[in-house]
Amino acid sequence: MNKHLEDFFEFLRFPSVSTASEHAGDVRACGEWLENKLNTIGLEAELHETLGHPVLVAKNQHKEGKLNLLIYGHYDVQPVDPVELWDTPPFEPVLKDGRIWGRGSTDNKGQLMAHVLGIQEYIEKNGELPVNLTFLFEGEEEIGSKHLVPFLETHKDMLPCDIIAVSDTGMVSRGTPTLGYGLRGICCCEVKVTGPSGDLHSGVFGGAVANPATAVAQMIASLHKLDGTIAVEGFYDDVAPLEQWEREMWASIPGAADQDVLDTTGSPEVFGEPGYSSSERLWARPTAEVNGMAGGYQGEGSKTVLPAEAMAKFSFRLVPDQKPEDILEKVKAHFEKHTPVGVKVEIEIGHSGKPYYSDPNSEYGKAAQRALEKAFGAEPVMIREGGSIPIIQDMKEILGADSLMLGLALPDCQIHAPNENFYLENFEGGIKMSQLLLDELAALK
Amino acid sequence: MNKHLEDFFEFLRFPSVSTASEHAGDVRACGEWLENKLNTIGLEAELHETLGHPVLVAKNQHKEGKLNLLIYGHYDVQPVDPVELWDTPPFEPVLKDGRIWGRGSTDNKGQLMAHVLGIQEYIEKNGELPVNLTFLFEGEEEIGSKHLVPFLETHKDMLPCDIIAVSDTGMVSRGTPTLGYGLRGICCCEVKVTGPSGDLHSGVFGGAVANPATAVAQMIASLHKLDGTIAVEGFYDDVAPLEQWEREMWASIPGAADQDVLDTTGSPEVFGEPGYSSSERLWARPTAEVNGMAGGYQGEGSKTVLPAEAMAKFSFRLVPDQKPEDILEKVKAHFEKHTPVGVKVEIEIGHSGKPYYSDPNSEYGKAAQRALEKAFGAEPVMIREGGSIPIIQDMKEILGADSLMLGLALPDCQIHAPNENFYLENFEGGIKMSQLLLDELAALK
Repeated sequence: MNKHLEDFFEFLRFPSVSTASEHAGDVRACGEWLENKLNTIGLEAELHETLGHPVLVAKNQHKEGKLNLLIYGHYDVQPVDPVELWDTPPFEPVLKDGRIWGRGSTDNKGQLMAHVLGIQEYIEKNGELPVNLTFLFEGEEEIGSKHLVPFLETHKDMLPCDIIAVSDTGMVSRGTPTLGYGLRGICCCEVKVTGPSGDLHSGVFGGAVANPATAVAQMIASLHKLDGTIAVEGFYDDVAPLEQWEREMWASIPGAADQDVLDTTGSPEVFGEPGYSSSERLWARPTAEVNGMAGGYQGEGSKTVLPAEAMAKFSFRLVPDQKPEDILEKVKAHFEKHTPVGVKVEIEIGHSGKPYYSDPNSEYGKAAQRALEKAFGAEPVMIREGGSIPIIQDMKEILGADSLMLGLALPDCQIHAPNENFYLENFEGGIKMSQLLLDELAALK
Repeated sequence: MNKHLEDFFEFLRFPSVSTASEHAGDVRACGEWLENKLNTIGLEAELHETLGHPVLVAKNQHKEGKLNLLIYGHYDVQPVDPVELWDTPPFEPVLKDGRIWGRGSTDNKGQLMAHVLGIQEYIEKNGELPVNLTFLFEGEEEIGSKHLVPFLETHKDMLPCDIIAVSDTGMVSRGTPTLGYGLRGICCCEVKVTGPSGDLHSGVFGGAVANPATAVAQMIASLHKLDGTIAVEGFYDDVAPLEQWEREMWASIPGAADQDVLDTTGSPEVFGEPGYSSSERLWARPTAEVNGMAGGYQGEGSKTVLPAEAMAKFSFRLVPDQKPEDILEKVKAHFEKHTPVGVKVEIEIGHSGKPYYSDPNSEYGKAAQRALEKAFGAEPVMIREGGSIPIIQDMKEILGADSLMLGLALPDCQIHAPNENFYLENFEGGIKMSQLLLDELAALK
């Protein structure tokens, strides 16, 4: 385990923040380190150039008649700000209180590494693998996997797969192995509002021209009714209703009940769309969130300025059968209808991805449930996920295979936030589970 | 003039930003430089300690029977951000295209300096002054003159005055001397909204807890109706209606017509309270402005975070007979009524000051009009001001004297904004006007 942790810590030290252009070199260096690691354990690994960050593909010697398993992961990470809220530096991982702390420890370097080390152990013990394995690791998941889709299209011959395994989702609680069978989709946009050509004195000019910060706030506020319902016309048109068995199973699952949400988030109360439980709001209902907003003076004290511009960044989480392009059209039409007087509005469209849904009780699903149960010693639960991994739906469409979501993240792992961490017990459990999965899947052939 | 400009530039180089605690030493150094300058020209100057930045008082030898003139100004300045929008460094003044560029060049170091140099020239020419002069210069105007009010109360015996002159307001256009007789008041508050204890992944948690950025936006949006009217209950109750002569005079004044507002601000269109012209909106109607707002991710690209907190800074410009305490009570009640579900809201009250109004045709007002006309060679116009100098109403209440507002700022002087500048012609005109005012006022006795 010490050697495994050394590898993991080395991997975590790369500040592979894909959204920040100044970190492009770090993303590449991280991919190269991983390429080298995979070659070292006996796979044939190669970094492939794209128009963005490189894609890493690694395989064992594929043989006719074996099941084709593709394991997907990503080696890029989210930004770290607000960096002052981290208890330890985000790219100097430490093991403390049974968890590994650092940016990417859970999302997704830790979960990816559990599979890599599982395969390493399997090869060390058995000499070879019982399946045709393909690792597919990208460096752009956190910015929407933009260049992976064309890569899949042009390289699908070198990516044979009957089934895909992905560990980039959550376990509902400690000790409860979890099989994910659905994901929310996402689409993003940014609104920039400009008014005067420069910041103005709010006394000298206030009252005679529109304030861009007020305008952005009005546009944000227009997205919701006060009860939490989204007010964009037609937003819910294509939302597939929850199935009865899902509502029943989720009602008994720990981790996403009201009290769990309060405990994990520290929010003063739960709040969301009327008529749904917290788990239903998180896993099967769409959202409209402001991820960031800014305008005017943000420093200490006051500055009586009427700002020249203001902005807001939005993301919308989508559920089956909503389509990102359709929702973006509706949001754009909504903002155009709600553009305040006296300002100019620009809407920039960001990344998007479709929601995903598959049958958790297929033969592959059952095999995954058995591997989870053996690795963690408890019966697994079946859930959907609130987050988005758009590439899973893309892989389904391009490579023709479903994904088993074998999540190892716990609710307090702080992914995308300061003090991200990964439970050592899940790192160890994941290494075991990855090996058990090989045997369970191989047995299906 | 070269020597005058040298003095002025030295004065401008102090980054005397009163709102930023790290600049406290610079504010003091600036006050000490000014103390020394005033002693050099033959006045008796002394810096007085307060609980904040020091107050500077300087006098000539006062003699029985002479008119007591107090000239007020401030040596502190606004912050400089966004500093990247400045064409030249804010504290490295330059003379270019007939203007002096730098933070404080107009507000208020340039206008203050015109009086100091006017007095210097008068003493050099005449040996003594025709009035009992008191300079009162403070270092906290930009943060609400908090410690000047108690200073006035405890030192009013050393501040004799029949009339006060203040150059901290505007001329409506180049070459149109302007006497100000009214000011808007101000009151400020900051709203801080907190939700989850840390930033959350907007996929994993979005939909089940309230988003503080959305909540702040809803609170901002609640302040106005879409037509620009302020929606706070009772906000307009005490607003004194405009007098007919004001509406008529203002309709013919250059500088604050719709087209002037567009030219000066660069806004795409004028916008404000229905039923009023731009000059009326600016000078005689109240406002509610967001001076700054922030929440979540503001960097490059996207970050799908549900922010833990968000904030907005507000200022309200008030007109006779609105009272700051009353308006703050009403705003607080409004925000309490409009607090969104699922978040915690803190409201912090900031500085405030009453609106001001006086008769522009009093004997002092007429004397000021004559000095303006002689200095600038044109008939002066009479206006109110959109900005706030709360201390003017305080001086009226404590020292018992009205203020003549002899503004030298032009609409494109960019006060409180990047590229603040002061027209050299107004610097020169101000130096003349200050001397003419001494003679006009002395003649009243």
